[in-house]
Amino acid sequence: MRLVTYRSHVQDRARLGAIVDGLVVDLQRLGAAAQMALPGDMLSFIDLGPGAVQTVTALLQEHRGRWPIGVAVPLANVRLLAPIPRPRKNIFGIGLNYVEHVEESSRSLDTSADLPKQPIIFSKPPTCVIGPDDAIEHDAKITQQLDWEVELAAIIGTRAKRIEEKDALSHVFGYSLMLDMSARDCRRAGQWIYSKGLDTYAPFGPCIVTADEIPDPQTLDLWLKVNGEIKQQSNTRYMLFNVAHLITDISAGIALDPGDIIATGTPSGVGAGRNPQEWLWPGDVVEACVEGIGTLRHPVVAV
Amino acid sequence: MRLVTYRSHVQDRARLGAIVDGLVVDLQRLGAAAQMALPGDMLSFIDLGPGAVQTVTALLQEHRGRWPIGVAVPLANVRLLAPIPRPRKNIFGIGLNYVEHVEESSRSLDTSADLPKQPIIFSKPPTCVIGPDDAIEHDAKITQQLDWEVELAAIIGTRAKRIEEKDALSHVFGYSLMLDMSARDCRRAGQWIYSKGLDTYAPFGPCIVTADEIPDPQTLDLWLKVNGEIKQQSNTRYMLFNVAHLITDISAGIALDPGDIIATGTPSGVGAGRNPQEWLWPGDVVEACVEGIGTLRHPVVAV
Repeated sequence: MRLVTYRSHVQDRARLGAIVDGLVVDLQRLGAAAQMALPGDMLSFIDLGPGAVQTVTALLQEHRGRWPIGVAVPLANVRLLAPIPRPRKNIFGIGLNYVEHVEESSRSLDTSADLPKQPIIFSKPPTCVIGPDDAIEHDAKITQQLDWEVELAAIIGTRAKRIEEKDALSHVFGYSLMLDMSARDCRRAGQWIYSKGLDTYAPFGPCIVTADEIPDPQTLDLWLKVNGEIKQQSNTRYMLFNVAHLITDISAGIALDPGDIIATGTPSGVGAGRNPQEWLWPGDVVEACVEGIGTLRHPVVAV
Repeated sequence: MRLVTYRSHVQDRARLGAIVDGLVVDLQRLGAAAQMALPGDMLSFIDLGPGAVQTVTALLQEHRGRWPIGVAVPLANVRLLAPIPRPRKNIFGIGLNYVEHVEESSRSLDTSADLPKQPIIFSKPPTCVIGPDDAIEHDAKITQQLDWEVELAAIIGTRAKRIEEKDALSHVFGYSLMLDMSARDCRRAGQWIYSKGLDTYAPFGPCIVTADEIPDPQTLDLWLKVNGEIKQQSNTRYMLFNVAHLITDISAGIALDPGDIIATGTPSGVGAGRNPQEWLWPGDVVEACVEGIGTLRHPVVAV
């Protein structure tokens, strides 16, 4: 399933939908038509556990092409929001998780050229999430070095604590795309939370693809363009620590809960690593894609 | 007001209370007796804004000593929980915010001896909060260097974004005590989220004292003992960046919301800075206090 959080033009409230044949199907309304109580938001749906994904997949198949009135609207007629507009916890980010990005970072930032022996974990506050097409804020009083990073995001489905790596992917609800925007000149004593945690610095979406449709998350192409020009292009197979390892490693000490998000790191091609260095400025447009998930497009605006 | 989140022996649900004359007054029940709809949890109460503090302070004064039946129980008969058992956002921590701690850290850890020019911000996930008397977990597979840090915590009351420093304290709901437990050997490429974010690493409580009772947060003694022996002893006047500055600085880029927590940094005397270094082990007991707020006591247990 391709799950979205959206708002239609005729209603204010954010709703939970599935994309089928270019339509957004309102899951709560479809459920009501089928005498099935389904939640109206993504986190409540994730909380239901893996059984709900199977049940709703079957329900969508059953009604496909014969949607009850008011249940399905054209995707073009809705506004997509971030799949989880306000995560319950900080987002876990992973630094230096693609080999070539380790090398470019050691040349241009303050990081080591040695490959990390353990995942480098940092965190972004839930407040920095924005949805498709939302503006990335450029505050010139805070940064002159706004940079881009495209990443595969894994969304946790069932609580994980001290698990074995072979079981790790069974804790994934689905996958999405997140940009780990970074103000390179806002690192403080090496800590990244401020430089990566400023408001609007986590564009997220356009959907969550449930894990049953992505059996191997280490096979996905991903790219990022600035003003139409390709800047990053790689594949998740080049991660140093794969998704299963990241979940196992974090949850050895920090419980991962349903709805938690891990941004799994970015490949090479960031602005800081280019010669000369390149930064984002108001008026720029960032587009990014993870294969099989979708594309995000964000303007950079001055605040 | 001294506000607590607690559970009484005869009911499972966590409730919101105020401590008056050695009693815990159930605010929701007192409100019901006075035909006033009051919430049953701390975050909902904080959301009501500063007016609610004034109103409830007056209500408590009015009923003091003449509590309706079932509204007040002896403090000794309840179990206190963390004032906010599950924060909505990561906790913001401040590194190296007391002069002598900067010096001891530069000797023993990987930090600079220069005084920071800006607050060093890091983050702890909401999952690491525990309440009074809860066990701090010692996982020998993860750390051999479990350390202590006592800190004044400021709890945000009204949303702050791009504010002036003179207005910053007006955004504070109240103050509390937090221990910033740290596994010194779990820093990764300098990032602190994992070493400071492990489950149980944020003992928090025993209460929130509303800001009207602490007009100047830079005058408070604070101390920490391990097994009865004093290890840290200082006063919040020795902070490099005071609470108003921290709120202004963080909220310049990251919106602070009602219920957000800032742990304002620790004075010298941590285990890493001692000669020889000292670490916590299962069986140890940590006690800590901030003047006017209260004392926390936590056993360290093996997991």
